[in-house]
Amino acid sequence: MSRPFRSIVWQDEMLVLLDQKRLPHEVTYKHCATVSDVFDAIVDMTVRGAPAIGIAAAYGVFLGARTARNGVEQCLQAAHAACQNLSQSRPTAVNLFWALGKMQSAIEALTTRRQTVTVSECLEQLLQTAHQIFQDDIATNLAIAKAGFDLIPNHASIVHHCNTGSLATADYGTALGVIRYAHEQGKQIHVFLDETRPRMQGASLSAFEMKSFGVPHTVIVDSASGFLMKQKKIDLCIVGCDRVCANGDTANKIGTYNLALVARAHQVPFYVAAPWSTIDPDTATGSDIEIEERAGSEITQILGSQIAPVGTAVWNPAFDVTPGSLITAFVTERGIASAPYAFSSAPSSVLSAP
Amino acid sequence: MSRPFRSIVWQDEMLVLLDQKRLPHEVTYKHCATVSDVFDAIVDMTVRGAPAIGIAAAYGVFLGARTARNGVEQCLQAAHAACQNLSQSRPTAVNLFWALGKMQSAIEALTTRRQTVTVSECLEQLLQTAHQIFQDDIATNLAIAKAGFDLIPNHASIVHHCNTGSLATADYGTALGVIRYAHEQGKQIHVFLDETRPRMQGASLSAFEMKSFGVPHTVIVDSASGFLMKQKKIDLCIVGCDRVCANGDTANKIGTYNLALVARAHQVPFYVAAPWSTIDPDTATGSDIEIEERAGSEITQILGSQIAPVGTAVWNPAFDVTPGSLITAFVTERGIASAPYAFSSAPSSVLSAP
Repeated sequence: MSRPFRSIVWQDEMLVLLDQKRLPHEVTYKHCATVSDVFDAIVDMTVRGAPAIGIAAAYGVFLGARTARNGVEQCLQAAHAACQNLSQSRPTAVNLFWALGKMQSAIEALTTRRQTVTVSECLEQLLQTAHQIFQDDIATNLAIAKAGFDLIPNHASIVHHCNTGSLATADYGTALGVIRYAHEQGKQIHVFLDETRPRMQGASLSAFEMKSFGVPHTVIVDSASGFLMKQKKIDLCIVGCDRVCANGDTANKIGTYNLALVARAHQVPFYVAAPWSTIDPDTATGSDIEIEERAGSEITQILGSQIAPVGTAVWNPAFDVTPGSLITAFVTERGIASAPYAFSSAPSSVLSAP
Repeated sequence: MSRPFRSIVWQDEMLVLLDQKRLPHEVTYKHCATVSDVFDAIVDMTVRGAPAIGIAAAYGVFLGARTARNGVEQCLQAAHAACQNLSQSRPTAVNLFWALGKMQSAIEALTTRRQTVTVSECLEQLLQTAHQIFQDDIATNLAIAKAGFDLIPNHASIVHHCNTGSLATADYGTALGVIRYAHEQGKQIHVFLDETRPRMQGASLSAFEMKSFGVPHTVIVDSASGFLMKQKKIDLCIVGCDRVCANGDTANKIGTYNLALVARAHQVPFYVAAPWSTIDPDTATGSDIEIEERAGSEITQILGSQIAPVGTAVWNPAFDVTPGSLITAFVTERGIASAPYAFSSAPSSVLSAP
């Protein structure tokens, strides 16, 4: 199925990002010509979703390098500085650091050859590395979607949190990719979309995607998931994630942990779909993850209107941590990983075939 | 402590309601001179909170009777018609039916005396009955607040859902009444207020009340309660309710059930504060409760702005049902009732002294 929109495109030597802040009402694009444009787009959530942030940052490194054409060393220094700068944009998503690490490796390889390469060759190599990250993400997402296919019963009712689809990735997405693929393959499914306070990615972005792809869907408030499971037959929950620890503890959008607790109380399977790059075996447990806290105005103001009394104190963590013990399985491009989890650099030990 | 606002006042022969839809930004009042005014105020949630709805409806019956001064029978018929009409305003809160039942009893008593009473005496009797319901609510709330006092440790951190304070009742409130009373008595407490989607009664009304009374408070999104309990020490949850069944199953604002599940997973005590009139021993279990479903636009639109794509399907139950097994205790004006619950018209068997 062709897509009615594109979240990330490299076009006319610029990074073109679908402005997710304006969805679902307007499909408009932000053109990024500089590192600073990309940095701002990540911080203000023009681009969001862990894989999409990583891809945008990779192109951002190229945009940084391009400003220094007066010499190979200057060019590579600018690329390195862009890596440093972009790593400060958001703290939680491991894909950002993974993608920047790929770009940094390319910079280092070019640095060892700095006497023999030209500026043009450096720039070409950095751009190709970014393109490769983009293409790999598409391939990865489709592999995740196929790996998850057997987990979705025909006629399944599914609960999904936040946005994890084409908008969060180069294409298809993670959890919504699994859902979309099952729908495209003819399974009759219905997805209940947590609206996902405070930023409403479920009600706005995921509803926009499911409508675009023709997947039957219903929006609920986040706190209704338990009553939903009690009132209607729910077959599974599936979500994406921002970082997975060695023991399976998983950082994802705030509300994921409550959903996982509620699913467990109703014996509903709880799946996490993620590219392998989201798994961070160097982080032992969830308590080692830095959790970004965002401005209280995300909660107290909606679309510019003040909801709470002016000056009200707010606690607004962007993410929470779901213990691996509450996660039935991870759906990755390498296959299904089931509990108990002990992720390491030798992943085959915890995987079943997709 | 004197109150900076009044939610319900009988003044100049009219029912004057604080317009809760305009809070926390404007303290304005709606003047109700007819049954239809009161009906509309209940439906559009100018007045909300189970006890407050009951009180408003009681005055509404008097306003209905007042339109028929041409004879005792006509007057009592108009009062009866007002009862019928107002019982259609909202389906879930038992206090509405309890208050209307009190008014209906007064109507019936007057009907048996219809040969000997005057229209003025009928009207006076109906107004006094409404006043009595109002005064009883104030006394009840204070008794609830005192009954709950020992459940609140000094330095407690508390999670609260929806709005259950002065705005929801004639004064003090139920769950927020317990909190306010503990604060007034010098306990150092901090309350985390679930914002309470979709209508945001926590972020707007409860934050307004806690600010008015000087109780330290922080607003969170509803889905953050689990992560809050994991990250910070939470001593208890306390909520109000709209209806309690014989077995303790409790209908309350959507999200209460998720909070109760999350509290149980963290071994946090979960209390329900309610006037005894909320207990409905004639309803055996939660599955017998009719749950009001409200318009999807409550979720897809906020303050007139569209969040989700136009036409998005929504499931919007106004309430959920929390099983009695998840409720540590009920706090009532008659004392504390602890699990297991078997409410009947002989309540003393399940109560400990307040």
